[in-house]
Amino acid sequence: MREETAGETDPLDPMEEREEKERGIMGQEQQDESKSEGQPASMNTQNSMTEKEENFVEVCAEMEEKGKEKGMEEGEMKKEMELEAEVTVELSQTVSAQQMSFIRGSDLFGYVGIEAVLDQMRRKTMKAGFEFNIMVVGQSGLGKSTLVNTLFKSKVSRKSCTPNYEEKISKTVKLHSVSHMIEEKGVKMKLTVIDTPGFGDQINNENCWEPIVKYVNEQYEKYLREELHVNRKRRIPDSRVHCCIYFLPATGHRLRPIDIEFMKRLGKIVSIVPVIAKADTLTIEERQEFKERIRQDLAANGIQVYPQNEYDEDPEEHILNNRIRESIPFAVVGTDKEHQVNGNKVLGRKTKWGIIEVENVAHCEFANLRDLLIRSHLQDLKDVTHNIHYETYRVQRLNESNMNFSELGLSTWPLENGTADKCESESHL
Amino acid sequence: MREETAGETDPLDPMEEREEKERGIMGQEQQDESKSEGQPASMNTQNSMTEKEENFVEVCAEMEEKGKEKGMEEGEMKKEMELEAEVTVELSQTVSAQQMSFIRGSDLFGYVGIEAVLDQMRRKTMKAGFEFNIMVVGQSGLGKSTLVNTLFKSKVSRKSCTPNYEEKISKTVKLHSVSHMIEEKGVKMKLTVIDTPGFGDQINNENCWEPIVKYVNEQYEKYLREELHVNRKRRIPDSRVHCCIYFLPATGHRLRPIDIEFMKRLGKIVSIVPVIAKADTLTIEERQEFKERIRQDLAANGIQVYPQNEYDEDPEEHILNNRIRESIPFAVVGTDKEHQVNGNKVLGRKTKWGIIEVENVAHCEFANLRDLLIRSHLQDLKDVTHNIHYETYRVQRLNESNMNFSELGLSTWPLENGTADKCESESHL
Repeated sequence: MREETAGETDPLDPMEEREEKERGIMGQEQQDESKSEGQPASMNTQNSMTEKEENFVEVCAEMEEKGKEKGMEEGEMKKEMELEAEVTVELSQTVSAQQMSFIRGSDLFGYVGIEAVLDQMRRKTMKAGFEFNIMVVGQSGLGKSTLVNTLFKSKVSRKSCTPNYEEKISKTVKLHSVSHMIEEKGVKMKLTVIDTPGFGDQINNENCWEPIVKYVNEQYEKYLREELHVNRKRRIPDSRVHCCIYFLPATGHRLRPIDIEFMKRLGKIVSIVPVIAKADTLTIEERQEFKERIRQDLAANGIQVYPQNEYDEDPEEHILNNRIRESIPFAVVGTDKEHQVNGNKVLGRKTKWGIIEVENVAHCEFANLRDLLIRSHLQDLKDVTHNIHYETYRVQRLNESNMNFSELGLSTWPLENGTADKCESESHL
Repeated sequence: MREETAGETDPLDPMEEREEKERGIMGQEQQDESKSEGQPASMNTQNSMTEKEENFVEVCAEMEEKGKEKGMEEGEMKKEMELEAEVTVELSQTVSAQQMSFIRGSDLFGYVGIEAVLDQMRRKTMKAGFEFNIMVVGQSGLGKSTLVNTLFKSKVSRKSCTPNYEEKISKTVKLHSVSHMIEEKGVKMKLTVIDTPGFGDQINNENCWEPIVKYVNEQYEKYLREELHVNRKRRIPDSRVHCCIYFLPATGHRLRPIDIEFMKRLGKIVSIVPVIAKADTLTIEERQEFKERIRQDLAANGIQVYPQNEYDEDPEEHILNNRIRESIPFAVVGTDKEHQVNGNKVLGRKTKWGIIEVENVAHCEFANLRDLLIRSHLQDLKDVTHNIHYETYRVQRLNESNMNFSELGLSTWPLENGTADKCESESHL
């Protein structure tokens, strides 16, 4: 952390400056120091890197700032200093800068091509494709299948969505998944839609969330077992639920007990995106008031829906996500019918009093939902599932099973008295 | 696998066609079938998806082919069929196509925005940065530090690389790592260069590879422990050696025993890229003959260098990598001096008889090496390290420690008699 603190030093404060000079000198001695502490130098550096890793973005931002303040002058000095082996105390400001050694494009004596890695990743993703698993929950008749079909512009849902489609409402909550491979502009997505027929359709809906909680956890369990397997697959098949769209009926009232009970439980294990279904029944005022009341109820019941406040990764993302949080739940309308509006074909629902254009943000918030789920946050939904929900499940499971790896065979490996002491590390971050 | 086989069916073969029809009908019954077998349907599908996952690329290629042959006609039929719930036997060809349900951009009734995931990944990579760890091995005086500095167009190597730089040759092989943050066009790379001073510099170089083998394994061990840790970091710090550049002196003879012994051992645990150092001492003929002899020696001793034949992921990559394999080891020259050639500044080494332009492919193969390490294969070096070398280490370690997870606490979880039987799955892949 030494270098980061140095980066924050105010050059006008003489106390700070002296401290920094000392640090600068200490920095030069770093190798011997760590040796005398009897700790392998490499381990030492490893730890400090880890701390840095976590503050990576902030540090970069800081450095950026610093760089702007000092401009080219520092760069010149640094270059000069690197050529000379001798470093005088007068240059301590530069010494600490060298310790960080953030080499910018302008400091390089030519083009390296680091950004090529982005294209390499892009090609690999396009070749391999990716998985996305979406669950829809809500009582029957709220247009779950139609909405998913509208989202992915194809019949990806199990049901035929035609009015003459008839099915008896099942007496228990069932889970049903359908997978499709969708390719658009060379990008292949294996989409799995998990439907939950029977949810909320019973006279007594007690514990109707249980099969759903179980399903979600089962997918984490499968992934965990695959991950812990000795001979594991190169790419672990991902059946984990990346997103659960919860359909609220457009009652215009408040959240019902079943909504609260479901989201309270599921919100802890999966990313929930609540939507107001068939929102064409609400007037503009009703919609605004209903949304506001739902947000109040969510907050009052401590229900976390996606994008969760606590998982925002940086201030930029926080601002962006706040805007989304202020407008959830999205009031949506789904359709698979096209109509002519001013000579253009638009997806819409034709009524005697006008056409509701589904993708027109002035008419409903379907486009906002689609943007969130697909165009702006799809990867983030996958990341939150992997980094937060799956990780939480994993910690809980491993604690349950009392699996303490350091007590198992792994401690027998001679990492402690290996060659680590022969390796000297320097970190210029 | 049923669908894939169907995809390969020759429509002109009546036997095959009948078989396919039967399959088409069977496909409709899939749910009940799996139920009657007493197996949870979701598990069943999981397994078949897994198999598919592995053949993902091939299947996609096959489907692409099939799609081209049939053109739009099939697409139209499919659409029609999906709207109707009734499927007749005459349409069996289309039925099997629906089972795969590979939905292409032209099949969608509008733009979805799946490719936006590429930009989402790009932004995330740019925000987070990435790690790249490169090791240089070879006796002193072969220009290891200069080459690394030339590769990354900055002083990233520990040594000052000035002629007046003096250091006693160490009596043992030491390992020394330096880390820098390099930013170019908004992409941040944490580069760690691991130097191995003392290697091959002793009177008796027996076992001089041991500290290096140990270091490489230690990094895998650190990663493994981090991965197995219950409360693990969101991003595991990656100190694993992604690439080991092995410097061969430009003797013009053959591989020396020390080269063979080192690469034999290290080639099994890390991606080795051998280079001919200070290649400006070789004539054109000498260079070609030396390279050819080295390739023979590598093959004769069963030494695998990067890119390893067996890890090519598809035919396209195989062809590309073959071209690289035919031209290794690259004969390189390093420098950090710029010279004027025809009014342009070029990196080069000026001699009385001319300037060797380091980045000119007509003069030496530095540019080929740089392209391989940075511009075309950087991500692949990281992937091979993670998917092959680390995975090999992990399997070995877990087998050593007799850690059988299914015998541990994890088996106590009621996956077997859970709600899995309530979940019906359909796969349209």
